[in-house]
Amino acid sequence: MKIGFLGLGQMGHAMAANLLKAGHDLTVWNRSADKAKELVAAGARLAATPVEAGQGEVVMSMLADDAAVEAVVYGENGILGAPALHVSHSTIGVTLVERLTRDHAARSGFVSAPVFGRPPAAQAGKLFVVAAGETEAVDRCAPLFEAMGQRTFRVGTTPSAANVVKLGGNFMIMAAVEAMAEAMTLAEAGGVERRAMLEVLTGTIFNAPVYSLYGEILVEDRFRPAGFAAPLGLKDMNLVDAAATASRVPMPVLGVVRDHLRATIANHGADVDWAGIALAVRQAAGRD
Amino acid sequence: MKIGFLGLGQMGHAMAANLLKAGHDLTVWNRSADKAKELVAAGARLAATPVEAGQGEVVMSMLADDAAVEAVVYGENGILGAPALHVSHSTIGVTLVERLTRDHAARSGFVSAPVFGRPPAAQAGKLFVVAAGETEAVDRCAPLFEAMGQRTFRVGTTPSAANVVKLGGNFMIMAAVEAMAEAMTLAEAGGVERRAMLEVLTGTIFNAPVYSLYGEILVEDRFRPAGFAAPLGLKDMNLVDAAATASRVPMPVLGVVRDHLRATIANHGADVDWAGIALAVRQAAGRD
Amino acid sequence: MKIGFLGLGQMGHAMAANLLKAGHDLTVWNRSADKAKELVAAGARLAATPVEAGQGEVVMSMLADDAAVEAVVYGENGILGAPALHVSHSTIGVTLVERLTRDHAARSGFVSAPVFGRPPAAQAGKLFVVAAGETEAVDRCAPLFEAMGQRTFRVGTTPSAANVVKLGGNFMIMAAVEAMAEAMTLAEAGGVERRAMLEVLTGTIFNAPVYSLYGEILVEDRFRPAGFAAPLGLKDMNLVDAAATASRVPMPVLGVVRDHLRATIANHGADVDWAGIALAVRQAAGRD
Amino acid sequence: MKIGFLGLGQMGHAMAANLLKAGHDLTVWNRSADKAKELVAAGARLAATPVEAGQGEVVMSMLADDAAVEAVVYGENGILGAPALHVSHSTIGVTLVERLTRDHAARSGFVSAPVFGRPPAAQAGKLFVVAAGETEAVDRCAPLFEAMGQRTFRVGTTPSAANVVKLGGNFMIMAAVEAMAEAMTLAEAGGVERRAMLEVLTGTIFNAPVYSLYGEILVEDRFRPAGFAAPLGLKDMNLVDAAATASRVPMPVLGVVRDHLRATIANHGADVDWAGIALAVRQAAGRD
Repeated sequence: MKIGFLGLGQMGHAMAANLLKAGHDLTVWNRSADKAKELVAAGARLAATPVEAGQGEVVMSMLADDAAVEAVVYGENGILGAPALHVSHSTIGVTLVERLTRDHAARSGFVSAPVFGRPPAAQAGKLFVVAAGETEAVDRCAPLFEAMGQRTFRVGTTPSAANVVKLGGNFMIMAAVEAMAEAMTLAEAGGVERRAMLEVLTGTIFNAPVYSLYGEILVEDRFRPAGFAAPLGLKDMNLVDAAATASRVPMPVLGVVRDHLRATIANHGADVDWAGIALAVRQAAGRD
Repeated sequence: MKIGFLGLGQMGHAMAANLLKAGHDLTVWNRSADKAKELVAAGARLAATPVEAGQGEVVMSMLADDAAVEAVVYGENGILGAPALHVSHSTIGVTLVERLTRDHAARSGFVSAPVFGRPPAAQAGKLFVVAAGETEAVDRCAPLFEAMGQRTFRVGTTPSAANVVKLGGNFMIMAAVEAMAEAMTLAEAGGVERRAMLEVLTGTIFNAPVYSLYGEILVEDRFRPAGFAAPLGLKDMNLVDAAATASRVPMPVLGVVRDHLRATIANHGADVDWAGIALAVRQAAGRD
Repeated sequence: MKIGFLGLGQMGHAMAANLLKAGHDLTVWNRSADKAKELVAAGARLAATPVEAGQGEVVMSMLADDAAVEAVVYGENGILGAPALHVSHSTIGVTLVERLTRDHAARSGFVSAPVFGRPPAAQAGKLFVVAAGETEAVDRCAPLFEAMGQRTFRVGTTPSAANVVKLGGNFMIMAAVEAMAEAMTLAEAGGVERRAMLEVLTGTIFNAPVYSLYGEILVEDRFRPAGFAAPLGLKDMNLVDAAATASRVPMPVLGVVRDHLRATIANHGADVDWAGIALAVRQAAGRD
Repeated sequence: MKIGFLGLGQMGHAMAANLLKAGHDLTVWNRSADKAKELVAAGARLAATPVEAGQGEVVMSMLADDAAVEAVVYGENGILGAPALHVSHSTIGVTLVERLTRDHAARSGFVSAPVFGRPPAAQAGKLFVVAAGETEAVDRCAPLFEAMGQRTFRVGTTPSAANVVKLGGNFMIMAAVEAMAEAMTLAEAGGVERRAMLEVLTGTIFNAPVYSLYGEILVEDRFRPAGFAAPLGLKDMNLVDAAATASRVPMPVLGVVRDHLRATIANHGADVDWAGIALAVRQAAGRD
């Protein structure tokens, strides 16, 4: 398929590489073009502007935040007028997705397909894709999602639904880390090592990656270098908060994790992992 | 081994039956003796008082709450003076366990070994046992724990450590249910069915029983009959709260789940499952 | 003084009327001009555009939200290029005030002067003005503030400081209402009438208007018509939240009141008073 | 009137002194008798046991906690069988008050009359008395309350009602301090001095002692020596929490202040004032 890809950060680069490997005719664009070198060497074309990458059948975007997405769509040489179906993989806010859906409606069409997984999963083509949009449009993307992920979940025909699921999932990661941090801190105060607590958890009904992966970070104090930095986590939780405000859904645990992200950044800097909310829990208990 | 068992509720009865099946010489006691019929028919002896059941090598107790444990230990004909090692399986408070540890110290000895698992797991001998106490004492109990559980976790030589782990685990169940309820309510408000949300969770990094079991309850609205009733959940969370107060550990998510247990009981009665905190989340969002 | 006034809602109209009464040479502007009738009849000039009202010495704005302020400043015929010192009375976000400060710096200058008080206080010239900006600029405004308020507080030379104080004050109103609602609900459940509870509070160390005014609303269930509607309250609390995020200040009570504002709007509609968060407290307790 | 007084701590001593000054025939008792010296010198009789002080018309108790009250009532030589009407001024739990009410019912009768005010107010006879109990019994106490307080509030005929009001009031003090701490921390982060923030608050609708007294503590960092120590505050908030659990009333702000009391004690020790929850707020914001 003739496709474009916008945004070559760690995640986007890995996703684009897998699309290329799967044999697609790929044009890439990135704000700083040097990030594209490796992909061009492997056969991709480099576009000078977003709209240039949007001349194929599909153009995918994987960008840092709402502002970056707005820029490549609505900015100078943005893809709004381009013929390609826009597939947005970024973790962005519900309101922006609704706006993108409206504005693409009469033109190329729009699919939202945020992903779960960190860079290593992206490189291995093991992402989870959560897709929503018109059935025919999502169908068309199926081979692309297969090239980059291990499984695709279809959650309806309204694109923003995919973002609500993605944001809800990220919130649940933070909530699991927060709960584990509170329980481990209580356990430590009661004479139980964090490692022993984690073994009980992952040996019983909490045997899921969300506990084993983040549990290791908490047990080993591996908050640096950040796999996903606290300010990015706070940005995502702010998007959840905006959705909750718009939908009038009280989310008290969201309030807790947002406060702890603020506390973590205030006390430990912007380069700490988002699992660093455990540091806020420990500090409050005088156990840091 | 010549053992005694105090407390034949749903859990205790199943545990005692498995001990009998494993060939142990069992004496049982229960406040209302008729609960012992089936076990007696299967070969157990019935004791008229707790102390009578404490004449063997080990006496185990599986009771509803702190008051019930205090009664069989310190009450009339209690086991405090009995020769048998006391193994407490009940989910009780840290302060009481510390007192029991002190008071048994110079006598029979004391092991705390609370369990994870609901009645069906108890019947199948599939409980998880979390044990703490003097090494030699816990060693002695190993065959008994094997008869009733699928795995034993040893978390130290201080008995109360086992209770902190058990209470922390129960708290984490509530926290997982609360987070899932908040995320599902947000998702529903955003047009995503609860079932679709759960499939994404259990299909990705949340693929653990705590999410699949409780997720089904939330998706199917199976809050009655209660597997574990909300007032019992609140009782347990109050024990966590007491431990957190004693250790000076702030636990904001604990505050949230305790408030939601109160709200659930206030609005839906005492016979609702503890996962009914999801009803409090939905009601606050005007989606009940 | 030759002054302009932008925004003739309930608050702005009353403030403008007092400026006129004090003898100032007043030009007014409002999006819908008919709101200006009464003031014109009393001697004010009507401007066709914001910039036209900004040709005097000072131009004051009292508008509903960030978007409205952005429109009169940066929009078509906005006051950005006008010669008059801009005095902003609106309750707006810190980020916008910082932007306004920067953009007015080399031109007319900028003072932020949000006010405390409801429409009756505005009509009576009894507002409290919280002002921040360059000393000379704030000095110049003193007679104008005196015409509309009973007291002016100067909180520094950085305009955004005034907004932080105003937002913090509004947050504290919500926090006082929330605390009173929780205490009254507990008291009611314990057999104490809300009225009796309020009498003790205002008869002891809680004898301030924030408790007596809002306490009456809670005791008498006077949530409609709204003195200040819940969605406006939520808008303000969102501005506090944005400031807290920017400054990395955890504010757990803010999280509680924002959740209760969402719950109140979800369950009782958008026309309820912001003190209606008491309804969310009662509902959660099954006492509505 | 012939009266007895049990408990001569700072508060009780001052209250007893005022009763003596008012001309009553006073017998006092305290666990350590030397605290009674001054009162005996001024004309009081010293009782060797609680019951000895309960031989008059009324016996009042002002003790540290539930355990101390249980001891003087139900313990050896307790007042349970004494002829005097028991008036309890202590801040104790609702459950205990209900038990005291039942147990005194057929005997001497029982009035609950907790007080608001710190030791200086007690010395000056300026306490606020919150009384509940049978009308005739409370009537009889009126001159005694007048001798020690500036005003008596009658909140019903069920004694526990007075304790719910007292506990609710103490909770509202903590809630006001917490809200002020959050707002001041946000203000400071935004460049506003705490003093300036406090002046705006007490100069507008927050002009009540709860803000001015505690605001001074926050502005001046006067957390030591403690006027009321954090562990005592936590004890009181635990009583509120127990009442909320019993009544099924969710109180999220209570959860916040309890967590902050734990954090304050964990990080600053047991000798800090309960207003020290502001330190927990600041620490979480990285501003300590």
